[in-house]
Amino acid sequence: MDNFTFFNPTRIEFGTGKEQLIGQVLTEYGVKKILFCYGSDRIKRDGLFAIVTNSLNEHGVQFVECSGIVSNPVISKVREAITMAREHQVNAVLSVGGGSVLDSAKAIAAGALYQGDVWDLFSGKGSINAALPVFAILTLAATGSEMNNGAVVTNEETREKFSIGSVHTFPKVSIVNPVLMQTVPRDYLVYSAADIIAHSIEGYFTASVQPKFHSRMAEAIINTVIETTETLLKNPMDYDARAEFAWASTQALNGLIYAGTAGFSYPNHMIEHSLSALFDVPHGAGLSVIIPAWMKWYHDRNPEQFERFAHYVFGVDTPAQSIAALERWFDKIGTPTRLSQLGITEADLPATIENVLGNAKWFGIAEIYQRDVVTTILQNAL
Amino acid sequence: MDNFTFFNPTRIEFGTGKEQLIGQVLTEYGVKKILFCYGSDRIKRDGLFAIVTNSLNEHGVQFVECSGIVSNPVISKVREAITMAREHQVNAVLSVGGGSVLDSAKAIAAGALYQGDVWDLFSGKGSINAALPVFAILTLAATGSEMNNGAVVTNEETREKFSIGSVHTFPKVSIVNPVLMQTVPRDYLVYSAADIIAHSIEGYFTASVQPKFHSRMAEAIINTVIETTETLLKNPMDYDARAEFAWASTQALNGLIYAGTAGFSYPNHMIEHSLSALFDVPHGAGLSVIIPAWMKWYHDRNPEQFERFAHYVFGVDTPAQSIAALERWFDKIGTPTRLSQLGITEADLPATIENVLGNAKWFGIAEIYQRDVVTTILQNAL
Repeated sequence: MDNFTFFNPTRIEFGTGKEQLIGQVLTEYGVKKILFCYGSDRIKRDGLFAIVTNSLNEHGVQFVECSGIVSNPVISKVREAITMAREHQVNAVLSVGGGSVLDSAKAIAAGALYQGDVWDLFSGKGSINAALPVFAILTLAATGSEMNNGAVVTNEETREKFSIGSVHTFPKVSIVNPVLMQTVPRDYLVYSAADIIAHSIEGYFTASVQPKFHSRMAEAIINTVIETTETLLKNPMDYDARAEFAWASTQALNGLIYAGTAGFSYPNHMIEHSLSALFDVPHGAGLSVIIPAWMKWYHDRNPEQFERFAHYVFGVDTPAQSIAALERWFDKIGTPTRLSQLGITEADLPATIENVLGNAKWFGIAEIYQRDVVTTILQNAL
Repeated sequence: MDNFTFFNPTRIEFGTGKEQLIGQVLTEYGVKKILFCYGSDRIKRDGLFAIVTNSLNEHGVQFVECSGIVSNPVISKVREAITMAREHQVNAVLSVGGGSVLDSAKAIAAGALYQGDVWDLFSGKGSINAALPVFAILTLAATGSEMNNGAVVTNEETREKFSIGSVHTFPKVSIVNPVLMQTVPRDYLVYSAADIIAHSIEGYFTASVQPKFHSRMAEAIINTVIETTETLLKNPMDYDARAEFAWASTQALNGLIYAGTAGFSYPNHMIEHSLSALFDVPHGAGLSVIIPAWMKWYHDRNPEQFERFAHYVFGVDTPAQSIAALERWFDKIGTPTRLSQLGITEADLPATIENVLGNAKWFGIAEIYQRDVVTTILQNAL
């Protein structure tokens, strides 16, 4: 096992009704005025906005609304929000939404206390030395952002989808109420399943140091996601399945299954980021297309681990059988497995390959993911 | 799943050589003077004391030695250390040792800032409103104390083995270097294995709300402990096995596999605490005796979970087969499975039963664990 530091100070408030605590939680942390970030007006229609603002008002916490954060969140919006945060002198950022809103909130929180342009923090020009405290009410379980310090944002001008992460960008408190997720549309549920599985398998397959304990934990997450997704497709209101799905999602990317592993990379995310940046496809949908295509190219490089995966996840014998089983499972739940399902054709490949090659440098795996390899993987996905 | 709060702010520094960081770590937290708690002089003979004090001296951290903390640590020693901590006005407590030293350190840290007698915090007469910061260098992986806020201490006068826990008693930083554990005697290795398995199964079998995800995580821990214990018995110097064993131990009791479960209890710990308090047996040795005896009495109350355990841990079919397999495994690794191996005979049962019945109230399960039940379990263990 590799040496590591594990530190995850985010407090999770998990369960029914927990969003009502938000005013009290902010008061505990001495917060008087927040930037209230969210996506669409759906939270106004479904009552969540009223619950949150009632709780804020009760505890005398002022708020400034920052709405319109889209999935695959963009840096222009983050910049706009930073200006608001500064003008209104908020002392915290509250995210009400899924990973896109929360990732934006982290970028806003770090950017508000950074002197230059916030994109510097993504491109590596600048570094995060402080951030406003971030609080979250999660409405979609997928990205794991509620219990880690990472944030992924797209620069629309440069067509780059990059990330930040710092000890300052862990949410202080994340509220996870599975009831709020019962209305997640069916397509976003299955995209989320693909996203969580991606978080669990990137390290699982690519790490040069991958203890068996960590593999077992990753399999616990994957098997839970597979089982609960199937339950939720039949009955979206199943609270326990929703809760296990959400908690497994949190565990997949809170650092636990990576602590002590080494030499891992995120090739599926790297390729998918190009699909999101160029074609604005949902992240999870892009991943379910890329994962089987990548596996078909990659499995010979780590056959033992693919045999583990075959055995402990799908109860089959060979790597090839398990890849087919995962692809069939993606098909069954209704998340795409072909680029064509995303409206991406062979004619789009050259531009996609260029973008991926750009990402590869940033992801630190340009030596492996050269033009011929990326082409093979994308062709596998046609 | 039940509602829960998960919050675990302990930073883990894991890996080879990490103990050399202690001076730097304490300086980061502004600590100038510590109470340096340890057990025997072994740490002086094996060089650890020199490494730690060199690091302290380098960073100008003063220390006051408090040695002689024994396993099944006692409240009289904690009281003595509290007096020292106050006299010398230390501003932190450093534990160098296993769970006994660390649990004592937590009790000292809380007691030093409590106005009354520290046992009040255990008996429920007083509550912990503050504690000195606690830091740890772990030399034995078993209790999980390095990443939780609990501490178990025995009152020698009253023959009670009780615990405390508070948001103030999480270690700030715990250093876990598997190399320091390579010299753990064979018997303490196998007792530790029993202890970790106990932490993993208490909730697993007794919880009225036990999500499958949590069962899978517990099984990941148990299977890792079984596998790495066998490796370490053959080769105590196997670093990776030592590391996985240690990290699994931490995960077993850092709150993760309990977050969201409900209605669980710690009957095996409850009964074992009486064995430790009355006969001063090593905690893990007591547990490996009690667990199979308890299982034989308990399994009909939760047959489905015993079937899971049979299948996913031992690859057998029935609860009875899995109980026999666990007992055989304890025998194989050389941790006791009979009271007689601990020198406890039938003549000792009456006093033991009385002590357990006293514990049962404190553990909140007196209604289930009445005289006849406790007698049956202890007789199973003869």
